[in-house]
Amino acid sequence: MPTIADLPTPTLLVDLDVLESNLRTMQERCDRLGVTLRPHVKTHKCVEIGRMQLAAGARGITVATLEEARAFADAGFDDLTWAFPVIQGRLHEAIALSERAVLRLLVDSAAAIDALEAAGHPFPVWLEVDCGDHRSGVDPDDGAAVALARRLRDSTVLAFDGILTHSGHAYHARSSAERAAIAAEERDVMTDFAARLRAEGILVAGVSVGSTPAMTAADDLTGVTEARPGNYAYFDATQVALGSCAVADCALTVMSSVVSSAAAGRSVVDAGALALSKDRGLGDGHAPSMGAIYADYEAKTIRGDARLVSLSQEHGQVDAALPIGERVRILPNHSCLTAACFDAVHAVRGEEVVDVWRVRRER
Amino acid sequence: MPTIADLPTPTLLVDLDVLESNLRTMQERCDRLGVTLRPHVKTHKCVEIGRMQLAAGARGITVATLEEARAFADAGFDDLTWAFPVIQGRLHEAIALSERAVLRLLVDSAAAIDALEAAGHPFPVWLEVDCGDHRSGVDPDDGAAVALARRLRDSTVLAFDGILTHSGHAYHARSSAERAAIAAEERDVMTDFAARLRAEGILVAGVSVGSTPAMTAADDLTGVTEARPGNYAYFDATQVALGSCAVADCALTVMSSVVSSAAAGRSVVDAGALALSKDRGLGDGHAPSMGAIYADYEAKTIRGDARLVSLSQEHGQVDAALPIGERVRILPNHSCLTAACFDAVHAVRGEEVVDVWRVRRER
Repeated sequence: MPTIADLPTPTLLVDLDVLESNLRTMQERCDRLGVTLRPHVKTHKCVEIGRMQLAAGARGITVATLEEARAFADAGFDDLTWAFPVIQGRLHEAIALSERAVLRLLVDSAAAIDALEAAGHPFPVWLEVDCGDHRSGVDPDDGAAVALARRLRDSTVLAFDGILTHSGHAYHARSSAERAAIAAEERDVMTDFAARLRAEGILVAGVSVGSTPAMTAADDLTGVTEARPGNYAYFDATQVALGSCAVADCALTVMSSVVSSAAAGRSVVDAGALALSKDRGLGDGHAPSMGAIYADYEAKTIRGDARLVSLSQEHGQVDAALPIGERVRILPNHSCLTAACFDAVHAVRGEEVVDVWRVRRER
Repeated sequence: MPTIADLPTPTLLVDLDVLESNLRTMQERCDRLGVTLRPHVKTHKCVEIGRMQLAAGARGITVATLEEARAFADAGFDDLTWAFPVIQGRLHEAIALSERAVLRLLVDSAAAIDALEAAGHPFPVWLEVDCGDHRSGVDPDDGAAVALARRLRDSTVLAFDGILTHSGHAYHARSSAERAAIAAEERDVMTDFAARLRAEGILVAGVSVGSTPAMTAADDLTGVTEARPGNYAYFDATQVALGSCAVADCALTVMSSVVSSAAAGRSVVDAGALALSKDRGLGDGHAPSMGAIYADYEAKTIRGDARLVSLSQEHGQVDAALPIGERVRILPNHSCLTAACFDAVHAVRGEEVVDVWRVRRER
């Protein structure tokens, strides 16, 4: 059996024990909260992990792109929500994909509904609602939102799945209490809107919520039917900073080699922006940490004496002189973007490499 | 002939007229300065563009990774400098690659030279020098730097190519005069160090410098033999801000569709962090522009009324309500990282798509 010492650097590792624990914990949480789990696979883009999520109890998956949808449909996944405002110019691709999987779409505009009705394909459709993130989704307090739901209900082409939201603003929370409050607000916005729609005679079958920082804090999701967290499979330094998890819950690392320590008090590792992404996590603009270096991976301790202070394309700059040739494991700021830097992820138990999984990062 | 209107979004476009002009201009500049051009292909990772660079007069190429080296060697490129401190654990891969191409390595430590001598393969080797960037490279004022050069000269295994540097600190310049001063300093540091080595009886054949912001400002490279800029092929919003080029010189764009404008005064495009990268360019930490939206691509004008203020994985948030379905072309902050988000780049003239080139982003 190869070990991680046999792998070239930089390389992407997923700790199977931690991953399995994360999948089990979130599934149990959803079971306890009475919601089905439809995990977002944009985090890992691995069909093997998607299968583990289904085996643990998930119902269907969530994807961010049509490329992800196709990759998972090719692997036999047959119930997918494309959780992105529908790209009208790509409806023909969505229709082709519907030949082999149920593909659920998102809309938040009359223009999108017009395009879907003109296309004439019987897609299941979610109405996206803004629960406070202000990125996309209809304002539930605007009468236009009710009108769009009514159009979906009345459509002779489309099937109305329900209402869906993403509490992305939970990433701005600064305590577990704030995350719990956002989870409660997300629930309330959605259940209030569902109640108003039902009062108008519109059947709302599904009420779908999302985001890992909210789902790890939610204690009551009465009235919600489905949750779509993604990051929880791997977690990362940002989730640790948010309090969504502990370092011990982080499953994804980049293993890197020290290649230079010529500059006084500094060194360079072979993990740069194309191994970690340039996500700054929650760090401020002037002194970000671009990832955390483990002191001891098994002990789950992070070095306090060596920080990854800057990334260029392939160089990671460390503010301490580490020995050339030493290997370090790095906890990324944003596991989703980090995973998408690699063609494959190595599944490990301890130091043993037990499998290699393709990352379906086609674009 | 397909046009860009036929392409799904998000998609990566390179303007061939601009690319050809950029390649010609840098080659002419190097010719005039009396240095050979060994372009860094990490920017585009396209063998087709590498061939254009060689046809324009470049001598060999520079790569950042062994994956790039293999991809270009597979395509017949036979003279490559791996401009990264050698990764000792991957020497066997470098040796295998040397069977079909000249692979030049970089060292900046005794540890690296020890490893190369132990491997016993006759690599041509550059000694990397720090000319002010303080990322990697030996301090030329340190006696240890001379000792390393002497070891390379005396090695019975390795061939000493010369001394090499990268003026990455030119990215911190805030005027063309500052860039020109950094280019002059880079030259002086290198030619002074070469003179000291020669005074010690060490033959220094090559003196290699790099970086697009310095090379676009340099007016005298007497004593330098080679330059390794990469970004100049595409340029980007960062180079515009540095004064290295004009918007009209930027060859790479991401074409994107507006998919939502539900939030008041905002909209969402389908180009997020996995289409543009999270590089903030020169923007400050609090109000970065994550890319510039063209008002009129042919006129080379940038919108002042709609800014890309935030990127999540697949969403780009714009601070203006753009019409759903409208297509926008985005000038990325960092073309190298943006190109590495895609499997292919579409070569266009005007709106016609004349070719599709693979981006060799294997990792």
